[in-house]
Amino acid sequence: MQELLRDIIQRNKSRIFLIVLDGLGGLPINGITELEKARIPNLNALARSSACGLHIPVAHGITPGSGPGHLSIFGYDPIRWQIGRGILEALGLGMEIRATDIALRANYATIDNDIIKDRRAQRIATDISRKLTERLQAEIKEIDGVRIIFSPGMEHRFAVVMRFPYPLKKGASDVTDTDPQQEGNPPLEPKALSPEAEEVKRIASEIVKRASESLKDEPRANFILLRGFSMHPDIPNFYDIYGLKALAIANYPMYRGIAKLLSMDAPDIQGDVSDEIEFLKGHYMDYDFVYLHIKKTDSYGEDGNFDGKVNVLEEFDEILPEIIDLRPDVLIITGDHSTPSLLKGHSWHPVPFILNSPYVFGGLSTAFTERECVRGELGIIPATSLMPLALANALRLKKFGA
Amino acid sequence: MQELLRDIIQRNKSRIFLIVLDGLGGLPINGITELEKARIPNLNALARSSACGLHIPVAHGITPGSGPGHLSIFGYDPIRWQIGRGILEALGLGMEIRATDIALRANYATIDNDIIKDRRAQRIATDISRKLTERLQAEIKEIDGVRIIFSPGMEHRFAVVMRFPYPLKKGASDVTDTDPQQEGNPPLEPKALSPEAEEVKRIASEIVKRASESLKDEPRANFILLRGFSMHPDIPNFYDIYGLKALAIANYPMYRGIAKLLSMDAPDIQGDVSDEIEFLKGHYMDYDFVYLHIKKTDSYGEDGNFDGKVNVLEEFDEILPEIIDLRPDVLIITGDHSTPSLLKGHSWHPVPFILNSPYVFGGLSTAFTERECVRGELGIIPATSLMPLALANALRLKKFGA
Repeated sequence: MQELLRDIIQRNKSRIFLIVLDGLGGLPINGITELEKARIPNLNALARSSACGLHIPVAHGITPGSGPGHLSIFGYDPIRWQIGRGILEALGLGMEIRATDIALRANYATIDNDIIKDRRAQRIATDISRKLTERLQAEIKEIDGVRIIFSPGMEHRFAVVMRFPYPLKKGASDVTDTDPQQEGNPPLEPKALSPEAEEVKRIASEIVKRASESLKDEPRANFILLRGFSMHPDIPNFYDIYGLKALAIANYPMYRGIAKLLSMDAPDIQGDVSDEIEFLKGHYMDYDFVYLHIKKTDSYGEDGNFDGKVNVLEEFDEILPEIIDLRPDVLIITGDHSTPSLLKGHSWHPVPFILNSPYVFGGLSTAFTERECVRGELGIIPATSLMPLALANALRLKKFGA
Repeated sequence: MQELLRDIIQRNKSRIFLIVLDGLGGLPINGITELEKARIPNLNALARSSACGLHIPVAHGITPGSGPGHLSIFGYDPIRWQIGRGILEALGLGMEIRATDIALRANYATIDNDIIKDRRAQRIATDISRKLTERLQAEIKEIDGVRIIFSPGMEHRFAVVMRFPYPLKKGASDVTDTDPQQEGNPPLEPKALSPEAEEVKRIASEIVKRASESLKDEPRANFILLRGFSMHPDIPNFYDIYGLKALAIANYPMYRGIAKLLSMDAPDIQGDVSDEIEFLKGHYMDYDFVYLHIKKTDSYGEDGNFDGKVNVLEEFDEILPEIIDLRPDVLIITGDHSTPSLLKGHSWHPVPFILNSPYVFGGLSTAFTERECVRGELGIIPATSLMPLALANALRLKKFGA
């Protein structure tokens, strides 16, 4: 599909906004969902005059993580383009990832006589963990010309990036975890699953050796475990595919990271939704496409906090007129997946969306809810259809065939 | 899908009519679409007792040309089966295309000192162009055993077919255009992009050489440019796949041409819709499948003539009872794509359809409009699903698996 698009893309001055309310979709509690409960007159009015529907992020029944959820609304087949756990962890910690990087997740652990006694070093406090990670960074900056970059995380967690001075071969990250998964076992040696992975394996062994030497006198965090070796997912960039100069506005590093993988501009933005909206107003004019991410719908859903999620929806509804006033040619409002408070987690349910442009029917959905979107003019579609529809509605696609 | 069908096809005496109102779907202007405005009581009554829905010709967001639009409603994957520009141009001019043909589009151009001054020979009048093309045909009938066939077009345009006396290899038409695209440049030499294309390239060079010699004293049209070299798309024929003896009734050559590519019978029909209907009445008994094409819905849509399109719909509605009186077992009424007057061109919007047979629910759509078809029992489906549905409703498909 993306190949077909490349041949028919045309440029114009139109502007597309994609607003992602993370984990938007819900499920009924006492008969009504978060969207059905929320007082959202602006969203409801927009739904009435827009093309509505629901999108399926990966496939019916499949609950997506944040990576696949976002890739698919950006039009990338989430089964073909899988982002490794190490890369996602590093992105989530705000690390920059380059094409020549290998990223991995790491844990502090407690070892005694070569046996792992605690895989999480008794969940040491974040401030202690941070200091240890700074110490490791000070002592291990480079191994045989490969830059080693550490980034502290929460409690016992941190991330490591190996930055190579040369391009990596396919398979270079095919290295096994050192975490034995069960306490009472010795740590595993990293193994290379292909000849291309030998170098990464060797450096991983060296990192473990130097780190355990450095940490050996720590009472709890005297060892490290490495997991999720992964490479930059050599993914086509958003501009090359769509011809859209794209800006990502997100106040959580993970989402900026995913946007940066696709080569969107994704500046560091601090603060809450109103700060994001201020940034939008100041910068949207320089872009063809703006992706704006709102996190709290998902956070409250994950906590099972129905009313909290309702409140975030109502708060967003209040600022929606400010977004509409910027007059995007195409405005899409949706989520990357559903996070029903009922399930306290991501779910597989199709995600409601509004697509507004001058070239829609409207009049089929009376409100912006899951059930009203079922009646919408676009029905239930794969999430990867959203970008072609956005481009079409922005009149950025030429005819296919004569 | 077509391979699966081959195994479960069964013959019977049923008859399927597929009526294509070209560019059927529209968009609201002042709140209502062409179909919503039109007084079409017969279509509305039929919609109420039929299976309704909308079909997507290629994919969400993709605007199809006439070629892909028709192939998909005939059940051929329009991305797999792409008809070259030269072939479509030749078909549109009413040329017959055989399996051993290479077709191309040609332009008269103005050249001066080996520089293209006007790529369209100042859009010379069609009657002058026609005479020049007749002259070229008289002078260039054959090159090294390959028949050369010219067909005049509008203004500066014409088409050329090379008819080989032997089967062509895959890649034989991979020859580059001679049109430099920008005036002020010399014409390009045709280039063969594969060894299989050498022969076609050589003949193309020879055509250009002989034509420019013949035209050299013309004031404006003293050169020709060649584009869109393409082969017969070696496409499976309609009868072999579906076991249906098929008749195409179309008063425009392009649509007869597409039907002929699939080996349908497609006699030359002149006149308007009422002539097409008379032909239908006289010949439908000899066929299992009749495709009837009505052009003007698209033409008015392309012109942005909302009321004109409404009128064509109302005229068709008046003759619909004559079609129903012929008692087809399955009657499908749809378009090959949407052509909203609002957009003055083809569009990506799903296309409404009616599928009538004794084996439908009915009662879900209250009228034949885009929005009422959203509520229909078949929802939004790929256009390539229409033929399997037609066959099933004609009881021409056996059970799949035991």
